[in-house]
Amino acid sequence: MDFSAILRKRRTIRFYRQMPVAEKHLLKLVESACHAPSAANNQVLRYTVVRTPDLVQAVFYNTSYAGRVTPRRSPQWGVNAPTAFIAISAVKNGPVLSNMVYADAGAAVMSISFAAVEEKLGCCWIGAFKAKEVTELLAIPETEQILFLVAVGHPAETPVEDTIQQGESVAYYLDEFDRLHVPKYSVEAITRIL
Amino acid sequence: MDFSAILRKRRTIRFYRQMPVAEKHLLKLVESACHAPSAANNQVLRYTVVRTPDLVQAVFYNTSYAGRVTPRRSPQWGVNAPTAFIAISAVKNGPVLSNMVYADAGAAVMSISFAAVEEKLGCCWIGAFKAKEVTELLAIPETEQILFLVAVGHPAETPVEDTIQQGESVAYYLDEFDRLHVPKYSVEAITRIL
Repeated sequence: MDFSAILRKRRTIRFYRQMPVAEKHLLKLVESACHAPSAANNQVLRYTVVRTPDLVQAVFYNTSYAGRVTPRRSPQWGVNAPTAFIAISAVKNGPVLSNMVYADAGAAVMSISFAAVEEKLGCCWIGAFKAKEVTELLAIPETEQILFLVAVGHPAETPVEDTIQQGESVAYYLDEFDRLHVPKYSVEAITRIL
Repeated sequence: MDFSAILRKRRTIRFYRQMPVAEKHLLKLVESACHAPSAANNQVLRYTVVRTPDLVQAVFYNTSYAGRVTPRRSPQWGVNAPTAFIAISAVKNGPVLSNMVYADAGAAVMSISFAAVEEKLGCCWIGAFKAKEVTELLAIPETEQILFLVAVGHPAETPVEDTIQQGESVAYYLDEFDRLHVPKYSVEAITRIL
């Protein structure tokens, strides 16, 4: 798909159709992240693809979604929950992971999100999850630290982006048709030109 | 351009042709970042586009490139240096920026990097720069903290990605034709499937 179309179409998806995602499609998402830039090219990120329904369910119960519109955008298991997860962890190289590792992970998630649109999938970048429980469920090695989850599935909603100017509210909201609106600043609102 | 083509083609570019980048193209790059996901949709990132040659030069002298192959991939002003920069800063909301802000910035840079390929430009994500000096040069407000620079220009090199397996070196290197090779892990090398 054309990149400009992907850019327009990509939105965080929190409701999913209840059909499995093929392993090969999930690996396509991870592959897109493998090409991403990495500080000093160190590539400390590792990926755990979760497709087994019991495990997806267990991980799902340790995640939360869309705090601003709870519970109206909280998916329910067996109804509209994600059917896969990709966990992103980092190989530890000291007591605390550097900011650059989080930046690398953000770049990886962005690439995964674009690739998801290309594969006709949707995803949700999740920072709000019970890290200890998910680390145990997925048997993440002690040499690694889990950073983020990405929920993946076939989209069952079509959120809308609204352009806003400086000073307007960034709070996303549901309209009368239960459609999620995501306010995003215009270029002019947040850019200086020198 | 097709996303899969952009994904294959995108590489960090450190040598540039000496011709200016049109403002509208730089704003296209920032626009791509405006659509990116943001933790709780807070959108704390701000962008400073730098095109004025004197200012680009001043910023350039506060940046460094490709530590592993210094000085062979260090661009020189007037020869193959970037002709623009985009500075990414974040509105401060406490004494220390959270990891999520760095993750947001990583996502923004990834989107900018893809958009650069779409615009037939190249860019280099720079974490190694003199933050205090650049903050002063660009008059970044005290309410913000600069996180990253992205060097931008018309590409004058074509780096190559090499696929590596677990245990192989991630060190990028220059070959006998002065072409940069960037080893990237295969999906299998860094992915577990559950």
